[in-house]
Amino acid sequence: MLTQDKQQPNWQPIIKEFEAAVGKNGVVQRREELITYECDGLTSYRQRPAVVVLPRTSQQVAAVVKICNKYVVPFIARGSGTGLSGGALPVENSVLIVTSLMRQILDVDLENQLVVVQPGVINNWVTQTVSGAGFYYAPDPSSQIICSIGGNVAENSGGVHCLKYGVTTNHVLGLKIVTPEGEILDLGGEIPEMPGYDLTGIFVGSEGTLGIATEITLRILKSAESICVLLADFTSIEAAGASVSDIISAGIIPGGMEIMDNLSINAVEDVVKTNCYPRDATAILLVEIDGLAVEVAANKQKVAEICKQNGARNVTSASDPEQRLKLWKGRKAAFAAAGHLSPDYYVQDGVIPRTQLAYVLQEIEALSQKYGYKIANVFHAGDGNLHPLILFDNSVPGALEIVEEVGGEILKLCVRVGGSISGEHGIGADKKCYMPQMFTQADLETMQWVRQVFDPKGLANPEKIFPTPRTCGEAARAMGESGKKFEAIEGVERF
Amino acid sequence: MLTQDKQQPNWQPIIKEFEAAVGKNGVVQRREELITYECDGLTSYRQRPAVVVLPRTSQQVAAVVKICNKYVVPFIARGSGTGLSGGALPVENSVLIVTSLMRQILDVDLENQLVVVQPGVINNWVTQTVSGAGFYYAPDPSSQIICSIGGNVAENSGGVHCLKYGVTTNHVLGLKIVTPEGEILDLGGEIPEMPGYDLTGIFVGSEGTLGIATEITLRILKSAESICVLLADFTSIEAAGASVSDIISAGIIPGGMEIMDNLSINAVEDVVKTNCYPRDATAILLVEIDGLAVEVAANKQKVAEICKQNGARNVTSASDPEQRLKLWKGRKAAFAAAGHLSPDYYVQDGVIPRTQLAYVLQEIEALSQKYGYKIANVFHAGDGNLHPLILFDNSVPGALEIVEEVGGEILKLCVRVGGSISGEHGIGADKKCYMPQMFTQADLETMQWVRQVFDPKGLANPEKIFPTPRTCGEAARAMGESGKKFEAIEGVERF
Repeated sequence: MLTQDKQQPNWQPIIKEFEAAVGKNGVVQRREELITYECDGLTSYRQRPAVVVLPRTSQQVAAVVKICNKYVVPFIARGSGTGLSGGALPVENSVLIVTSLMRQILDVDLENQLVVVQPGVINNWVTQTVSGAGFYYAPDPSSQIICSIGGNVAENSGGVHCLKYGVTTNHVLGLKIVTPEGEILDLGGEIPEMPGYDLTGIFVGSEGTLGIATEITLRILKSAESICVLLADFTSIEAAGASVSDIISAGIIPGGMEIMDNLSINAVEDVVKTNCYPRDATAILLVEIDGLAVEVAANKQKVAEICKQNGARNVTSASDPEQRLKLWKGRKAAFAAAGHLSPDYYVQDGVIPRTQLAYVLQEIEALSQKYGYKIANVFHAGDGNLHPLILFDNSVPGALEIVEEVGGEILKLCVRVGGSISGEHGIGADKKCYMPQMFTQADLETMQWVRQVFDPKGLANPEKIFPTPRTCGEAARAMGESGKKFEAIEGVERF
Repeated sequence: MLTQDKQQPNWQPIIKEFEAAVGKNGVVQRREELITYECDGLTSYRQRPAVVVLPRTSQQVAAVVKICNKYVVPFIARGSGTGLSGGALPVENSVLIVTSLMRQILDVDLENQLVVVQPGVINNWVTQTVSGAGFYYAPDPSSQIICSIGGNVAENSGGVHCLKYGVTTNHVLGLKIVTPEGEILDLGGEIPEMPGYDLTGIFVGSEGTLGIATEITLRILKSAESICVLLADFTSIEAAGASVSDIISAGIIPGGMEIMDNLSINAVEDVVKTNCYPRDATAILLVEIDGLAVEVAANKQKVAEICKQNGARNVTSASDPEQRLKLWKGRKAAFAAAGHLSPDYYVQDGVIPRTQLAYVLQEIEALSQKYGYKIANVFHAGDGNLHPLILFDNSVPGALEIVEEVGGEILKLCVRVGGSISGEHGIGADKKCYMPQMFTQADLETMQWVRQVFDPKGLANPEKIFPTPRTCGEAARAMGESGKKFEAIEGVERF
């Protein structure tokens, strides 16, 4: 990072320029007000930013970024701050650009099935805006009533319904972005599959390192004629996992397919009291089917049969919207409920091939036994995206470190079986040291070269995604082996 | 291009090294044998390569590319040579790397629904390999019995069934590539949505400018329980277009939805003699519905009603595989049939928002009248991807130039209504001068910077995608305006 060796900058003239760009009440600089912005959803990492700026338009974002460039200070974009990988964690002496005032829905074009929004617009608002006309926006993170579309774009967020409909990148048609140098650029457009390189695709999921999205063109989908949720309870997790494989093998792609284990079920019942989830079940499987009424009726039958064949004790279903919501309520509240089981919890986010489900869950249980920490499992079973919740007490000295080690072991396990170290929460600050587990040095160098195309000064969300020798011993060794490419361009330092 | 001002290289030592890398019978250098490789499916552009090399493995491709780097000679990858935009057109003094001997299916993993292939594998072979087990590979260009997966990846190919299932990029999970510098790199993997930048996404559709894919991991889909094709005939193209909009608005996403106009219908009936397409129809609409049997039955009913409401004279349908094939046969043969209407034809490939269909077809008809060339229209109506076929006689001096002008006018029309200059055939050599119609200078510069990350010497498929001042007056003016970014890195020349 370029600014590391520098003196603390003189913030007064910089803040003056920010105030000229966005107005006085768009700049936050009092220490007590800055506390809010010390961390995102990954609360174990904290760093106060030097100043927070709240722009309202693409032009204001561009002006703010240009000022950062002029004074060579790093900046970090932040939406609602609900990210779980520390993607919006400030660095020392940095500017936090918060998009909370950019909450306009700029265009609704039902005929062409698209909506254009500012980045601060809340995920759920998009569906609310178009639901009256029979449309919805598919990606639905658990945090959808609070997380922002800008943050979803940065992290390429998923959700319960991404099994059938894909994650954020599959629903972003175009972007207006402010590059890390403060230029306004249009990527993609209003139709899918533009010619030229897919810069929209590379921007989505780049975690704020390639610039700030200031206008986002989203694809919306027609609401299904009929929706049905099934709940099956099992006496073994393996049986629930086998049902998932069999449902997919039968050619059915449910809208969502979720498994919760006994620990999660009881946490949820303690807190949300759905009275739907049997407390003695080893695992429950939630399956949502959508489509034409006749299709849903036929698939409902098939799914129920498959679950029964795999030993489900009971299969119940709900088609009425209120009843469906009740079945989902526990799943949506699972993370929050984990907070009641234990003073603290650490959510992991890994992906495995669906066929490895039973093996990986056994190994996670073995890790739980070995380290002595309870692990609750809640996951998007259909696409193999695990969310183990490691329960601990952060007031116990050293506990966080051990829990992070357990989390790391889980990620290594995911990679070992051919999976990934992140499904939908991103790499951020949290997992960058595991990137060499998954990518070769050449892969990481190629990505960093692409990063330099957008951000030659390394000012946009530094110290994220890519491992730095300073913070991770393992990565340091890997990085030490090569570096040829980076030395080829004069004057460009490594991140 | 770096080699423009250079002397013709001494090919003898280069060819010796190629022979050492791939064996003597993997190198083609006799003039008469090189003729085959002068052009791809865009036959109006021709350039003989200096030498053709046919490697068999990733290692051999890497060795060949390293030799090209050593002698600083440009190289172009070619699959089956069916591309329609001149993406595999050689440049002067270049090496053509042909993947026709790389035809192994390396892995079939039905449980995780993926197949790994070498780039020379023919598109249709993938489905043939897995169809017995109830799976298929979705992207199906008209040329699918001859085009290669490597070429599909380069051009991000589409096809009739891409309306519902997406184009090539939605079906490529991972890639082994040889970079333009001859290094072997793995992008993506066996699961979708890996963390880090989406390099797989940027590679797919990069038309051979970012390297050569040598192993491709494809997602395969479960075959539908039931498939039905409907054929509706109309007395106006507008009515066929309105039916398309109404079908989508009703929440039905057909597997494919195609319109052919009267000229195409008669061409097809003259040649293929399907006896299914009414010769007096102004337009026919083909709709393929797939899914559960109950779903297909319900949607078939709805689609037929919508077509009738929009004035269809007749709606027929076929569910039996043989009958279905018969209904599709004419559409699949439409390009070939156009060759019987006229000595030559030029296929255009543009995209428009679905809602602009009627207007754009009127304007195309007006262009046909103005220039005095017949234009047959065949198109993927569901996703607004037009394929106007401009009929002409290339032996008439000046005809090609006028036809290219008409083609250009059509593309400008597509851009004007918010569409794109290519839907699935790529930019290649053919359309690079229209890129500034669609992208700003900043967009194009950003893409070229990304290109330089992969290909600092500019050796991989040069003179493609990006407009060069030398070949296009319009582009030259656009390029003249800026260039700031390119001057920033010392020693890097513009393409």
